[in-house]
Amino acid sequence: MSNETAPAPAPGRPEQSGSAPPLGVGMVGYAFMGAAHSQGWRTVGRVFGLPLAPAMRAVCGRDGDAVRSAAERLGWSAAETDWRALIARDDVHLVDICTPGESHAEIAVAALEAGKHVLCEKPLANTVAEAEAMAAAAEEARARGQLTMVGFNYRRTPALAHAKRMVDEGRLGELRHVRVSYLQDWLVDPAFPLAWRLRREAAGSGALGDLGAHAVDIAQHLAGAPLAGVSAQTETFVTERPLPGQPPDGEKGPVTVDDAAVFNGRLTTGALASFEVSRVAAGRKNALRVELNGTRGSLDFDLERLNELHFHDHTDAALESGFRRILVTEPDHPYLEAWWPPGHGLGYEHTFVHQARDLLHAVATGTDPEPSFADGLQVQRVLAAVEESASKNSAYTAVAG
Amino acid sequence: MSNETAPAPAPGRPEQSGSAPPLGVGMVGYAFMGAAHSQGWRTVGRVFGLPLAPAMRAVCGRDGDAVRSAAERLGWSAAETDWRALIARDDVHLVDICTPGESHAEIAVAALEAGKHVLCEKPLANTVAEAEAMAAAAEEARARGQLTMVGFNYRRTPALAHAKRMVDEGRLGELRHVRVSYLQDWLVDPAFPLAWRLRREAAGSGALGDLGAHAVDIAQHLAGAPLAGVSAQTETFVTERPLPGQPPDGEKGPVTVDDAAVFNGRLTTGALASFEVSRVAAGRKNALRVELNGTRGSLDFDLERLNELHFHDHTDAALESGFRRILVTEPDHPYLEAWWPPGHGLGYEHTFVHQARDLLHAVATGTDPEPSFADGLQVQRVLAAVEESASKNSAYTAVAG
Amino acid sequence: MSNETAPAPAPGRPEQSGSAPPLGVGMVGYAFMGAAHSQGWRTVGRVFGLPLAPAMRAVCGRDGDAVRSAAERLGWSAAETDWRALIARDDVHLVDICTPGESHAEIAVAALEAGKHVLCEKPLANTVAEAEAMAAAAEEARARGQLTMVGFNYRRTPALAHAKRMVDEGRLGELRHVRVSYLQDWLVDPAFPLAWRLRREAAGSGALGDLGAHAVDIAQHLAGAPLAGVSAQTETFVTERPLPGQPPDGEKGPVTVDDAAVFNGRLTTGALASFEVSRVAAGRKNALRVELNGTRGSLDFDLERLNELHFHDHTDAALESGFRRILVTEPDHPYLEAWWPPGHGLGYEHTFVHQARDLLHAVATGTDPEPSFADGLQVQRVLAAVEESASKNSAYTAVAG
Amino acid sequence: MSNETAPAPAPGRPEQSGSAPPLGVGMVGYAFMGAAHSQGWRTVGRVFGLPLAPAMRAVCGRDGDAVRSAAERLGWSAAETDWRALIARDDVHLVDICTPGESHAEIAVAALEAGKHVLCEKPLANTVAEAEAMAAAAEEARARGQLTMVGFNYRRTPALAHAKRMVDEGRLGELRHVRVSYLQDWLVDPAFPLAWRLRREAAGSGALGDLGAHAVDIAQHLAGAPLAGVSAQTETFVTERPLPGQPPDGEKGPVTVDDAAVFNGRLTTGALASFEVSRVAAGRKNALRVELNGTRGSLDFDLERLNELHFHDHTDAALESGFRRILVTEPDHPYLEAWWPPGHGLGYEHTFVHQARDLLHAVATGTDPEPSFADGLQVQRVLAAVEESASKNSAYTAVAG
Repeated sequence: MSNETAPAPAPGRPEQSGSAPPLGVGMVGYAFMGAAHSQGWRTVGRVFGLPLAPAMRAVCGRDGDAVRSAAERLGWSAAETDWRALIARDDVHLVDICTPGESHAEIAVAALEAGKHVLCEKPLANTVAEAEAMAAAAEEARARGQLTMVGFNYRRTPALAHAKRMVDEGRLGELRHVRVSYLQDWLVDPAFPLAWRLRREAAGSGALGDLGAHAVDIAQHLAGAPLAGVSAQTETFVTERPLPGQPPDGEKGPVTVDDAAVFNGRLTTGALASFEVSRVAAGRKNALRVELNGTRGSLDFDLERLNELHFHDHTDAALESGFRRILVTEPDHPYLEAWWPPGHGLGYEHTFVHQARDLLHAVATGTDPEPSFADGLQVQRVLAAVEESASKNSAYTAVAG
Repeated sequence: MSNETAPAPAPGRPEQSGSAPPLGVGMVGYAFMGAAHSQGWRTVGRVFGLPLAPAMRAVCGRDGDAVRSAAERLGWSAAETDWRALIARDDVHLVDICTPGESHAEIAVAALEAGKHVLCEKPLANTVAEAEAMAAAAEEARARGQLTMVGFNYRRTPALAHAKRMVDEGRLGELRHVRVSYLQDWLVDPAFPLAWRLRREAAGSGALGDLGAHAVDIAQHLAGAPLAGVSAQTETFVTERPLPGQPPDGEKGPVTVDDAAVFNGRLTTGALASFEVSRVAAGRKNALRVELNGTRGSLDFDLERLNELHFHDHTDAALESGFRRILVTEPDHPYLEAWWPPGHGLGYEHTFVHQARDLLHAVATGTDPEPSFADGLQVQRVLAAVEESASKNSAYTAVAG
Repeated sequence: MSNETAPAPAPGRPEQSGSAPPLGVGMVGYAFMGAAHSQGWRTVGRVFGLPLAPAMRAVCGRDGDAVRSAAERLGWSAAETDWRALIARDDVHLVDICTPGESHAEIAVAALEAGKHVLCEKPLANTVAEAEAMAAAAEEARARGQLTMVGFNYRRTPALAHAKRMVDEGRLGELRHVRVSYLQDWLVDPAFPLAWRLRREAAGSGALGDLGAHAVDIAQHLAGAPLAGVSAQTETFVTERPLPGQPPDGEKGPVTVDDAAVFNGRLTTGALASFEVSRVAAGRKNALRVELNGTRGSLDFDLERLNELHFHDHTDAALESGFRRILVTEPDHPYLEAWWPPGHGLGYEHTFVHQARDLLHAVATGTDPEPSFADGLQVQRVLAAVEESASKNSAYTAVAG
Repeated sequence: MSNETAPAPAPGRPEQSGSAPPLGVGMVGYAFMGAAHSQGWRTVGRVFGLPLAPAMRAVCGRDGDAVRSAAERLGWSAAETDWRALIARDDVHLVDICTPGESHAEIAVAALEAGKHVLCEKPLANTVAEAEAMAAAAEEARARGQLTMVGFNYRRTPALAHAKRMVDEGRLGELRHVRVSYLQDWLVDPAFPLAWRLRREAAGSGALGDLGAHAVDIAQHLAGAPLAGVSAQTETFVTERPLPGQPPDGEKGPVTVDDAAVFNGRLTTGALASFEVSRVAAGRKNALRVELNGTRGSLDFDLERLNELHFHDHTDAALESGFRRILVTEPDHPYLEAWWPPGHGLGYEHTFVHQARDLLHAVATGTDPEPSFADGLQVQRVLAAVEESASKNSAYTAVAG
């Protein structure tokens, strides 16, 4: 494969002259998330004007052959098999962590100690204790000018970014309800194997950490307020599954995480919030749905139709009032100035391009990117409160502050 | 107004020869619900073949002039101003109660004692104690051959009736999730007056009894299993409103019922159930939404598009799988044999025609109509558990059995 | 009994006192359309305040037993077996013609000569010559104070009635495009028998007269301008079908009408209009779709979701612009003051109630109802131009004026 | 690091080893289409396993500074200011033409004569004569092993590629109707300037060539049959517009292309086809809608929801039948093996990645890519027949063969 297309940042735009300095990026993990992040790093400078040019220095994985192959395919200049070596590289200024949650804390803390900026996939960690350690390390590193970010990429879906603007502009008035569900169905089949995402020691939790983390983050982000407390139930419907590599009727092991979680809560503003996450909702593939109802209007979003935002303006005349389907593809919509003409929709992976763009701007200007490790810790505390409530007869449980 | 169109049952159909005996109906209350029930009684014999011909004997209300006018307009042969006089009439065999919840118990018990069949609007009563008295009276009356029914009319929306058939036929497999929300927005405006539905002594509760009763009934009905317990939160966002007849800035009184309730629970089968009801969800007019996810398929319904049922068959090949929009207007769909060709949709009020049809068949055959007063009591117990949980820090609260 | 929040049909309307004089109605035909019209006549006085009370005097059909049974079931006081006898009745003031198109002209002209008002189902006639005779008779009768109306009932769907208001108010600006399709699928099956609707001598044409008449009427009505000319193609895909009563593989006869027609045209205003009608569009049950695009906005409607009107306001800010889904169920929407609270949708048959209401008001006030026989004739001329164009190599054919 | 559940791009594919030989690509034009094609060339090797590695050798444009800036930003190794120089480069094996239609023929023919493979944006040319010359040159070049392709990229939307598969598999039976509209609204505003797309000498035609070319290609492609003839009308609603660089009330020039076109036709199979294209359909941003109705099923697609394909299986039981919303994001859907998990949608630009993939495979195997220049010529002949019909009173006009 030719290397002639290797990333060179876009220097022709006014704000990013040819002298846009490079920012060396190193990534740990190259599976689903790693491929998505790579697409973000490769593309961002081709589309957006940037103050810093991301240089994809190295990717890290344990299997040497596999990681070298991935490096070539995904566009990384080098491959490493030890993440400690990766973060030790002088040419890496930012470490992008795309591994399962169990290793986030160790890698992130080490990278921060090594003086790197850190972007970490969600959920920030598998436990509150780990997340606290990471947030503490981030705070220390901040004093040294290092930045941290958690990969709640859905904030950067243009429709949800526009939703945030509208909430902030007061278009919804005072919020009464925040309603988020995130439904998938890949665990309906009881023959689906006992993958790492189904083992507590690797994944921390099930649908809760995988989908609930997104749900909680987007709810709090859009509402502009944290959850004060929650009341929850969790459930594991399929309690054992075939071990990986086994046939469907082969040896099984216990599923130690939840298949689904339902929980309600209150934001500190008094708004009611309801959540439902599941990986056994037959027919729902990636249905992150968000609805906000306020005293002046409402917003409705479904990730399965990610270019659309539905807005009800409650100040419209009743005769002409209704949810309008905004195609969030206008040049003045968030991130859209860089893409295609109206009506030419974006896809899932664009969120990673936007994430990269915002992080590079933050690094260039020394401002804090959002969401920070502190935000990730707060989400983790909500998830912990959910699990605590579920274990305590659904009693309303305050989110630790 | 001419009386020449006064209801005469449809005697020309084979199963209802001209000798179809009349069943005298008396109705108490003639506001929104009374008008809807009247439409049902007037229309049922024109559309469906019936074993009994409903004769609209008398309607009852306190204001003599108003009730006489209503009788003429709605098609009732006589008007009464005392419900005791109505149930005392020999020509009334069935009493249809369309008053606010506070008077249900007294009227229903008296009607049952007077030997009448009783159809009572939902919620069955304002308190569990009242509902228990009604169910007890119904049980006694049953021994004398009298029947009772609660007006959970949405069961008779053809789409939901078809959904019930599909669940019963096993098309969804084992249910994992039942998800019901019922959202309206007529209380968003803080100037909306303190109507009877906003006073606990008249309405029992707010969105909970008004909308939640429907939500709980349809969830349990479709799933074929009761809720074992619930965890809940309720909220009143606008705590005082102008007294009726006052200007928006005039004298106010306290709102003593909930604006919204969120609650989760478990069915006795182990399925998770989630509920949200609100009268302050801007832009949602009458959005009763029901989704069921099972191991073999899912169903999705929205009352705002009441002629549609969305079905995902999880046994379809993945390449061709997806929620299909069934227009529930085929002649073999429930109730549709009597209506229009495919694609010619029905409306809200048809549920009352269907309710009348099913009740008349039940009376004719002496079989128990569904839902019975016992079913109504069970829903009441769920609502009570919701309120108890909400008052006890959302603790999971078993539904009394 | 409180009713302060309940939108009960207004009992005290001055024009609806018990002294509203009766208007005798006689109906010819009692199949699908007859049943729908009967529902309209029976219901209109129960829901709307009326200046005239429709009295359902007699229904007419050739088979004595069948028509007597229908009279009893549908609520007509008497049955006739000769339409001449029906229109001769002194107690019939208005004749409602619900027969196949071949008999419209003869009955309507005779009824007009007998001094009756006439409501005639669409299409007005099977040929332009018949329609001209009817319109001429109507004009003569108009001088005697008699009124005529054609049953283009979809104008009275609240959503389309509201669409008309919006166009008239200039909300769409100058129209550029009118786009109407009306798709059904009941003829996909080649075993469907050769019913009267498939024989030219009875039905005049196929999808064109059945569906195209509605499509053309609603397009011209909403746009407020007639078609100047059309270019068309028609097609019969299944050219022979089993004779009625024969098994699918039994004796067949030729289909002499079209299965589908596609045609484009120009309104006299210069707007482009496109039409497509078919009875072989698999999966489309009753899909009358209407879209209007103007310089200030657009409207979109689908009869399969008849309570919704989608409106794009092109003067909205681009960032918040999009088709909004108006639930046309607000009390100030057309006809809705008489029905249910917001979000409680109406059905197909309500259009016939509204048609009866408007006709009764017209008779009471001596104003011309819309659409008149002249309007029906004009639609017939469009359909004739479509057939002429289709027969002349699709050449653009002016609509006769 | 575990990746057992993660559908990472397959790193070990044999055909994608580091030894994949390069194929030099040179692109002419770097505006909207050039940016989109660049994204395709840059990304294809990162996502798909490829037999040839595209090497982005040079991009060409007249303005030296601008093209150098574009080269750097878009990832091209060099910049050229003369397209003749570009096609003369030895390191360029494939020329990708992204200029306005007026220059397609000259560049393409020259590139073919220079021995290059050619990918040309649609429409193939501005006139049939040009397209014929291009097709002839392509045929000659084919004998020398050179390949040609036209950029009808929407064929490579996964949903439409899947639709093609379903049609080919007979899932729709015999087609009756093909219905395609392509609506945009960027010309509603009369102040929009007289850009090149509005001048006949540069663009050939208006909505017809811009949108109609896509519409015709996708209709014929999916149906698997060409149009035999068409009947058409075209219209220019805004006949003059401000010259570029002028204020809205400044000097104007005449619009010499159509704003909209409506046309119907017949496929050689006898199916009816209807088309509507417009750039003045307020509220429609990029609404390419395609519906196919056959004797066994129907398909429905809207580019504004490009990850969805709606399928009605007419062999389903009527009670459970309806259009199902297939999320075309399953790993076995076309092109999806390389992207994200189910439910994670793609965007507009992915069609260019897929186009690049298919072209590279064709070059590697020496098979003809689709659509070829011959296909592009046939579309051009349809467009010419449309214009001829529109100029001849809409007379049905055979498509030249």
